[in-house]
Amino acid sequence: MANNALTKNTKHLIKALYESGVKNFVVSPGSRTTPVALLLAEYDRQNDDINLYIDVDERSAGFFALGIAKKQQEPVVLLGTSGTAITEYTSAVAEAHISHVPLIVLSTDRPSELQGNGAPQTLTQHQIFGEFTKNYVSFTLQDEHPDVTTYIDFMTQKLVHESKIAPRGPLQINLPLRKPLMPQLGDKEDIVVSSLTFAQPLKTIDMLKLSQTRVLILAGPNEDADYLPELTEFSNRYHVPVIADVLSRVRTQKTVYGIDALLKSGMITPNYRPELVIRFGATPVSASVLQWLKSENIPVWYVGLTAGSDHSRHTTRVFQISPNEFLSQTTVTNNLEFYQLWQELNAKSRQVTGEASISRTLDNILPEQTTIFVANSMAIRDMDDIFTGKLTQNIYANRGANGIDGIVSTALGMSSTSSQRSVLLIGDLTLFHDMNGLMMAKQYQLPLDIVVVNNNGGGIFSFLPQATAELYFETLFGTPLNLNMAKVASLYDMPYVKINQAQDLKTVIVAPIDGPRLIEFKSDRLSNVKAHHQLMGSNK
Amino acid sequence: MANNALTKNTKHLIKALYESGVKNFVVSPGSRTTPVALLLAEYDRQNDDINLYIDVDERSAGFFALGIAKKQQEPVVLLGTSGTAITEYTSAVAEAHISHVPLIVLSTDRPSELQGNGAPQTLTQHQIFGEFTKNYVSFTLQDEHPDVTTYIDFMTQKLVHESKIAPRGPLQINLPLRKPLMPQLGDKEDIVVSSLTFAQPLKTIDMLKLSQTRVLILAGPNEDADYLPELTEFSNRYHVPVIADVLSRVRTQKTVYGIDALLKSGMITPNYRPELVIRFGATPVSASVLQWLKSENIPVWYVGLTAGSDHSRHTTRVFQISPNEFLSQTTVTNNLEFYQLWQELNAKSRQVTGEASISRTLDNILPEQTTIFVANSMAIRDMDDIFTGKLTQNIYANRGANGIDGIVSTALGMSSTSSQRSVLLIGDLTLFHDMNGLMMAKQYQLPLDIVVVNNNGGGIFSFLPQATAELYFETLFGTPLNLNMAKVASLYDMPYVKINQAQDLKTVIVAPIDGPRLIEFKSDRLSNVKAHHQLMGSNK
Repeated sequence: MANNALTKNTKHLIKALYESGVKNFVVSPGSRTTPVALLLAEYDRQNDDINLYIDVDERSAGFFALGIAKKQQEPVVLLGTSGTAITEYTSAVAEAHISHVPLIVLSTDRPSELQGNGAPQTLTQHQIFGEFTKNYVSFTLQDEHPDVTTYIDFMTQKLVHESKIAPRGPLQINLPLRKPLMPQLGDKEDIVVSSLTFAQPLKTIDMLKLSQTRVLILAGPNEDADYLPELTEFSNRYHVPVIADVLSRVRTQKTVYGIDALLKSGMITPNYRPELVIRFGATPVSASVLQWLKSENIPVWYVGLTAGSDHSRHTTRVFQISPNEFLSQTTVTNNLEFYQLWQELNAKSRQVTGEASISRTLDNILPEQTTIFVANSMAIRDMDDIFTGKLTQNIYANRGANGIDGIVSTALGMSSTSSQRSVLLIGDLTLFHDMNGLMMAKQYQLPLDIVVVNNNGGGIFSFLPQATAELYFETLFGTPLNLNMAKVASLYDMPYVKINQAQDLKTVIVAPIDGPRLIEFKSDRLSNVKAHHQLMGSNK
Repeated sequence: MANNALTKNTKHLIKALYESGVKNFVVSPGSRTTPVALLLAEYDRQNDDINLYIDVDERSAGFFALGIAKKQQEPVVLLGTSGTAITEYTSAVAEAHISHVPLIVLSTDRPSELQGNGAPQTLTQHQIFGEFTKNYVSFTLQDEHPDVTTYIDFMTQKLVHESKIAPRGPLQINLPLRKPLMPQLGDKEDIVVSSLTFAQPLKTIDMLKLSQTRVLILAGPNEDADYLPELTEFSNRYHVPVIADVLSRVRTQKTVYGIDALLKSGMITPNYRPELVIRFGATPVSASVLQWLKSENIPVWYVGLTAGSDHSRHTTRVFQISPNEFLSQTTVTNNLEFYQLWQELNAKSRQVTGEASISRTLDNILPEQTTIFVANSMAIRDMDDIFTGKLTQNIYANRGANGIDGIVSTALGMSSTSSQRSVLLIGDLTLFHDMNGLMMAKQYQLPLDIVVVNNNGGGIFSFLPQATAELYFETLFGTPLNLNMAKVASLYDMPYVKINQAQDLKTVIVAPIDGPRLIEFKSDRLSNVKAHHQLMGSNK
């Protein structure tokens, strides 16, 4: 009978997830997952709109799920087996927490009678991710009591909903399971999940008429719904210039790009000074722009469903509504000269050489609306400085904890959501950190072009003060790994292309291909430092 | 001045660690680690007995440190940068917690004014490993107040001591740091750490004279000090047979090996029944042996500094003293026939074919006292069934959470402690999970022979009930990765040898070589199931 309860309750869990909108499941094999994995595979066969991925390395699996959830803006389920397998999700869960991505971890566990008493593969899974999860619940799937089934129905729907409301984030559902673990496959009994729906909150907000005439919008990384059409209209109608972070998903030819380089080169003279800055989105990639607002004492209002976190501690007014709501209810009469001054910035030439020329080339050649995932460290800084958003606004990165871990997997998860080819821009050290992630590219033949800028080590440290500690620098920070990219590609049965200059990317990218591909651009760290100093100084 | 405080306090931290006995440091590069990493590198140049390893992938680094600490039985320091880098240590810290290994995580962090407020790369690092750490402390290295320096001296020594006393385990020292991060290198000021020593506890235990005459010792995995000489003498003098787990480090020609297979084959008839079993060490690899003690209702006493955890819930008496103390204070007059019955078991032939023949060959050919690290899943079960301990008792595994993660790195950490070659026995899936770990083998040319039993997937699942779910089995559990081992070796510039039968290992192992080597033995999962059933049934 316990096995019937197991089958029935597990089916309720799966169906409640599905009916709440979860369509993507990333499973890592293990013994304790057996009933959930098998019934999920069965459910997957019966429902065409489910995607079930098997990823052996749980660390990669966590980031793969993160990539799907980021792109789809829908919760993704991770299913893992008891023990350190669950701890391997921690990094992806932490990133999901900070950057507000819905993830649902199903952590199968040993039963209560094996806890804390020397049983193998048993650790405390209760709230194992600590503050990184929004909520936690435990389901006793093998319990026959009817209350357990309705609890699973109700709580699953409630938790999926919680993962999707601001601030979105990860959740854990722990599943203690006792042997025998085999469920009943092929059972035809109809599963009816008692439905729970959540009404939209009612909104009543007054119209806002701004008295300032030099208003500027600073659009940071967007973790929420798109607002490009509304912003474009607002900016055009009221002549409000927009500084658009490369991850804002609103960077176009009409917004200002590369504020970090502009500030460092001294181009932003006092006549660019705004009276008021409206911030959208998360913390910008450019560290300089927040410093500038603070040091110039320019008033900042912060708008967004999760707005309010400002580590420069300079914001004075917070609107916890979406950018769309704000834009539709605000009017301003901006100074035209001020607007034009900012609009002319993009036209001024910037001297782009070295690694940054890859970002410029991607800007020019990629098919419209290509999704680009950008690694942290140098890659994201180059893209923010250089990429104009001419043809695509679909730029993503893991800018919560800014780790160099899990980047390959996140990009692959993202590329799994579309048949159009995506691009990953990444350095050699970051690629190495998640090289295991490439297994998913091979197993599912995912359509991703991985552009590796290979400067044989950690390029960003050459820009930091420790670069002067010559005796220790190369060992502690440079860390050359001498990774042979052709061999990496070969190990994962991937086509490999080496390009000698950024422009060569064009002929590579237009060549039709299915599945993943590795494209290597060799650089060296010293000449890249010079190239960046040129970029910064080019308009002085 | 703050920078002088930073330099001074960081030097106190490093020196206090060193004087408390920490000699091994595993560092992962990052910006926030700068002052600690640089001053550590300087200290390393001044002290010949320090080993400083740089490991780019923090997950690998965590397990590499675990491997060193397991072998040396001394705490090892992990130094990592703020953000998900720290979360990457979670799996190794969890394993260290369960299997009682001293690790000290130095987690550099953003300063307090950047917490919880949108600063990049900032997450809550306060007690980030939850229940997996024994203690937690935070040092404000940039604080000039003299109390801070003596606090660092005192607490560092106290924490290192805590990590070393039973139950040993991991600790976290969090280090919030504000920019500028550059310390003063080359400073000659003498650092004097006020010393704190811990006296040994006084012991007064009575002599114990056992009245039972059929006493048997079950030696589980040993996480503590060696007790082989004392056990050998005790067993000889009092005719007490010993069932020795492969990880007990007391398995020799005079102890009984492979109890799991012996029980399953029906060889342990009622006349083998002991009157009392004395358990040492952690949970045995064999699941059957505890089941047998329980189902036959054989009384069990449990001896060890951390004894008491028995998930079979069958132990009736616990002695929280070391096996050595117990053996030196106990006498018994055992039945000679009972002793001989057990002693004759090893001589009975067992039919060893398939993957298990690798374990048998290792038993026969390895140089004396070779250290062998054994992966979880099938590898450890084979070794426990087959390995007789003829020439070495130095067998190790991660038998806390029994994860398949981090195995390559743990073995490499262990092999770094000696110039004698070590051996890792591992399956293809487990190798893949920690393939990044191989970078340390390449960077430090560590003397490890990696013997991969490649059955292209998860072999253990073929022994479990889900093997009957044919429609889903291969996708969910078999998970063939088609990993080309020659290419893996080539990527890490490692010699690669393929052997067709286990005996070929001999010619390979005796061939002199420096540095790492990959040895592949191809198997298939179906024929391996048959081979195991033969082994179990061979003496019926």
